[in-house]
Amino acid sequence: MPEHDQPLRTERTRLRRMSERGSYDRDSLYALLDAQPFCHLGFVRDGGPTVIPTIQWREGDRVYWHGSSGSRALAAADGARVCLTVTLVDGLVLARSGLHHSVNFRSAMLFGEAETVTDDDAAIQLLNAMVDSLIPGRSELLRPISTKDIRATKVQGMAITEASVKVRDGGVADEEADYELPIWAGILPLTMTTGAAIDDPRNLPGVTMPPGTDDFRIG
Amino acid sequence: MPEHDQPLRTERTRLRRMSERGSYDRDSLYALLDAQPFCHLGFVRDGGPTVIPTIQWREGDRVYWHGSSGSRALAAADGARVCLTVTLVDGLVLARSGLHHSVNFRSAMLFGEAETVTDDDAAIQLLNAMVDSLIPGRSELLRPISTKDIRATKVQGMAITEASVKVRDGGVADEEADYELPIWAGILPLTMTTGAAIDDPRNLPGVTMPPGTDDFRIG
Repeated sequence: MPEHDQPLRTERTRLRRMSERGSYDRDSLYALLDAQPFCHLGFVRDGGPTVIPTIQWREGDRVYWHGSSGSRALAAADGARVCLTVTLVDGLVLARSGLHHSVNFRSAMLFGEAETVTDDDAAIQLLNAMVDSLIPGRSELLRPISTKDIRATKVQGMAITEASVKVRDGGVADEEADYELPIWAGILPLTMTTGAAIDDPRNLPGVTMPPGTDDFRIG
Repeated sequence: MPEHDQPLRTERTRLRRMSERGSYDRDSLYALLDAQPFCHLGFVRDGGPTVIPTIQWREGDRVYWHGSSGSRALAAADGARVCLTVTLVDGLVLARSGLHHSVNFRSAMLFGEAETVTDDDAAIQLLNAMVDSLIPGRSELLRPISTKDIRATKVQGMAITEASVKVRDGGVADEEADYELPIWAGILPLTMTTGAAIDDPRNLPGVTMPPGTDDFRIG
């Protein structure tokens, strides 16, 4: 079966609880990956878990991340099983009881084996894609990635073959009896917002921000 | 040595690279834990890593999280080694080369062994503390946590004994030669912002949001 058509739902990714919040289709998963570059990557080192924050980007049916070529974390992850988790927080759910306080969120968990990209040209193309995943078209405006750059960097990725998406949205869900209580309940929406760009003080005279650069949005 | 005075820096938490970005003091760590409730918890299940998003809150020199008593994840974490990672994203660093694109962030990694809180009264007190860590004073306004509630919930925590904090802040750091290039560089600040509260449509007439509820801030 082509990789793209493999079911993402497996024994490991199937949601047991609140299964109505889960989905396993690539459209939902890819929309979330494309909406939230910040992620957490977990792997096992010396028998215990390690979770690092990083940026992910997607190319077709693969997801990538990168770091320093000297990173102990990426060395430990190389060839090993990893879990990449992407989370968007959309709001606090303030209920009438502590139990039903919750978070509106969208999250995805992807399981796979990390592979380091060993071909320099492929790594360069992927790093440019990373920049463009954040700011479309930016890679072409930059000083091109050099051989020295690529030696300093390690790009890792994995095939997207096993994953789940979980979403909690909507309003407060209290115990029926609690709706009779004079307790305020509601939602506090949370959004990651982009502030006004801060020019680097060493920008050359006349060099201005390319249009669209500050269109960057999370979510 | 009292737990509070134990060094957080260990062989596992010591930063090898960019060590100037690291710190190991409880003040820095606790400030970050108190500023960012959303976290990612990693543990090992069936020999592989799993990373789940959750909320953390701190009580003295311990950190806690919770979930459904039926959660497979918390069952797997119980008594096991965990890594709790808290990350605040403060901005995108847009450099003159792809290599030096970066993220301004504050993150903490805590290693320990998860312990489930088995005493009901302790669990109730901790869940109230969780609510109050988000919205100070809110737990007293709610329908009190019942025995039924506490049976549906599992609170886990760990002692804070081994941790590191890593911070990247400030401006663009390009290769010296690249500053001569007419390429715009700068910072796009990112902030999690709280929107206007949305009243639950089933709030009783005359029930209004308690003052301060929407003071909730991340960061």
